[in-house]
Amino acid sequence: MTTQSHLLKNSQTEISLPLLQQLDSQDPLAAKRDAFVLPENTVYLDGNSLGAMPKLAAERAQQVLTQQWSQDLIKSWNRHHWIDLPVTVGEKISHLVGAASGQLICCDSTSVNLFKVLSSAMLMQPGRKQVLSQAGNFPTDLYMVQGLASLLGEQRCQLKLVDESENDELLEQSLSEEVAVLLLTQVDFRSGRLLNMQRLTELAHAKGILVIWDLAHSAGALAIELDACNVDFAVGCGYKYLNGGPGAPAFVYVAARHQSAVSQPLSGWMGHSSPFSFDKNYQKAPGISQFLTGTPAILSMSVLDAALDVFADVDMAQLRQKSLQLSSYFHQLLLQHPGLNELTLLTPVEPAERGSQLAYQHPNAYALCQALIEHGVVADFRAPDILRLGFAPLYLRFTDIWQAVTTLAKLVETGEYLKPQYAVKNKVT
Amino acid sequence: MTTQSHLLKNSQTEISLPLLQQLDSQDPLAAKRDAFVLPENTVYLDGNSLGAMPKLAAERAQQVLTQQWSQDLIKSWNRHHWIDLPVTVGEKISHLVGAASGQLICCDSTSVNLFKVLSSAMLMQPGRKQVLSQAGNFPTDLYMVQGLASLLGEQRCQLKLVDESENDELLEQSLSEEVAVLLLTQVDFRSGRLLNMQRLTELAHAKGILVIWDLAHSAGALAIELDACNVDFAVGCGYKYLNGGPGAPAFVYVAARHQSAVSQPLSGWMGHSSPFSFDKNYQKAPGISQFLTGTPAILSMSVLDAALDVFADVDMAQLRQKSLQLSSYFHQLLLQHPGLNELTLLTPVEPAERGSQLAYQHPNAYALCQALIEHGVVADFRAPDILRLGFAPLYLRFTDIWQAVTTLAKLVETGEYLKPQYAVKNKVT
Repeated sequence: MTTQSHLLKNSQTEISLPLLQQLDSQDPLAAKRDAFVLPENTVYLDGNSLGAMPKLAAERAQQVLTQQWSQDLIKSWNRHHWIDLPVTVGEKISHLVGAASGQLICCDSTSVNLFKVLSSAMLMQPGRKQVLSQAGNFPTDLYMVQGLASLLGEQRCQLKLVDESENDELLEQSLSEEVAVLLLTQVDFRSGRLLNMQRLTELAHAKGILVIWDLAHSAGALAIELDACNVDFAVGCGYKYLNGGPGAPAFVYVAARHQSAVSQPLSGWMGHSSPFSFDKNYQKAPGISQFLTGTPAILSMSVLDAALDVFADVDMAQLRQKSLQLSSYFHQLLLQHPGLNELTLLTPVEPAERGSQLAYQHPNAYALCQALIEHGVVADFRAPDILRLGFAPLYLRFTDIWQAVTTLAKLVETGEYLKPQYAVKNKVT
Repeated sequence: MTTQSHLLKNSQTEISLPLLQQLDSQDPLAAKRDAFVLPENTVYLDGNSLGAMPKLAAERAQQVLTQQWSQDLIKSWNRHHWIDLPVTVGEKISHLVGAASGQLICCDSTSVNLFKVLSSAMLMQPGRKQVLSQAGNFPTDLYMVQGLASLLGEQRCQLKLVDESENDELLEQSLSEEVAVLLLTQVDFRSGRLLNMQRLTELAHAKGILVIWDLAHSAGALAIELDACNVDFAVGCGYKYLNGGPGAPAFVYVAARHQSAVSQPLSGWMGHSSPFSFDKNYQKAPGISQFLTGTPAILSMSVLDAALDVFADVDMAQLRQKSLQLSSYFHQLLLQHPGLNELTLLTPVEPAERGSQLAYQHPNAYALCQALIEHGVVADFRAPDILRLGFAPLYLRFTDIWQAVTTLAKLVETGEYLKPQYAVKNKVT
């Protein structure tokens, strides 16, 4: 892990409010903020957990309710193209993750989609049983492997974990011909560390390993190149940087080269080559649609579909640049407050090694997070002692960073965050 | 199958418009129609495919969008009890299906939930490999067994099908000690035939077989007694008679007696005993929550939650009575039109043997269905030659039956339905 002596880029410049105001005035993405409904007097640094609501999303929900469902009822499947939504939404996400058409579809939750690609990949690797991942991977990724192992038995599926570290040496050393599948999350949910997708995929392939990337904390936050990196499978989340609403459907990517050989066990009727023939034998759809299972969640998926239109004219390189700037300035500003020296940065400082969030260790991170929220700066807490701040470039302003760090400094310097009310635990933390 | 010479109950009475008007005026459920938004000049006989929109559902969606998601953002998980929704909704459904508290939860799609309970049940039956079902079961039920078999191999999981018939003799004869799981849909999606849950469950148990009931076409349409029938597992659909909106989340029931021994392989983070500890080892939640997988679809689940409030004061025996009356009168009225004698009823006439729909075979059922829809009577078609009519007692009037049959008779008698525009196939039929 890094220490505070490693400054982020541009660390020579003193960060001032006028500088941040100037950055806002020059920001090519500044107008995007108006595409969202945001609460007053709030700096929202939790878009990596639940994205803000696009105005288009709310409008679409209204249409689905008042025009489609209530008025056209069952006819809407054809008239309003409900039946095409998994593909329509999938294609919009494809553009954000470097996937050519026909390889990505919207459906189910990230966890369920993980099970589909994990099972598919294991069935393609009959002589191997290991699924290699990192001990700090998002728990659901590890749990889905454990679930598959409980079903298949230890002789067909075993989870092997390597510990996190500042570099990928341990991980790379573990890539052996005993490994069937390498399962990684591109951006670590705790530390915000960004893995090298290109290099790790290439190294894995050299050993005959299939690779699954979880894009939960990267899709919509940075430019991803699934096809160029020769990725085999990927899954991702609709409700973080894609702003699809709470519990929005997830997505699954399967490289075209695998689609004819692959077979996934959650073979529901929507993945059939001819769902409305009601044939008693499953015959998988020829393309990515074979990864559908049950009836799509139309209301939620329509909202995600509309939310994605916010990205239609966004240059992902520009978005990435703003994301890195926001987090850089946040950290530099934090370093300008000597009172905040108990906050230890866990996120790598190198731009190539971090996603769109910062994570700080602090002995009283929970209370600090609650106090921040109470004072209009929404961050989140990850057990046991991490304060996590997400930077969603579509709706955050540079001046929000000033507001956030100033609030944080005041809470710490006055001791306000030590008041007992901030220690009360919520169900969801 | 039955023939038209078997009349439904009360067949002696001539069905007239005044009689139906009188029934409406005496209907204890008549006021419920006002709880829904319905299109003008339409008789909607497809509530068994997609339920109509309750006003409460639209209001709740608005709240979730404009107050919760957009304003309270991530705080809504605690403040608006999003985290409790799977249980809250599950408990409301429990009341409709005869399940005591703590055994039913809302999540995912019916297909995905089927996979969970199928796998769970198979893991509880290590010496047996057969899953017994009916050849005419809804395809997704059969496909999920085929998917599990593809993963586990033929030596651990095999689908065995018996053909449909007028009685359950064949099915009952097939209940042997080689069968691990009996998987049945309570009401057949094509014919509308209702199986005897109590008897079949008891016979299966006598042979050591675990039983899974799919309630897709029965939950919300008739009184179900899961606990009293000693059912092991059940799944069901949120968007048919429960009116939860297109692709609403589904539900899963696991009898309390199995909850400590059972293990389900879609072990996502929401099913963990302590999801926010982010432990790397899966430890299942102690109760029904272990059947959760990924993050719940909050918008869709909130809408379903509100939709279920329409049932809060409904007497299910009264609802069932109205449902049977609606279908009885429909069929009797149809028999009063000699021009409709090409329509052959596939649904059993005995009330104890039918759900809340009627199915008619007709050589040109597709065109007939399209013409009906075009003339304001929404029915649906099931390949190859079935016209299917669903009777949702919460929003259908007895006079709607008059309107529907009169329209049908006119379309047939005039030959209108033979016009070429009604032969054009839609994607979803």
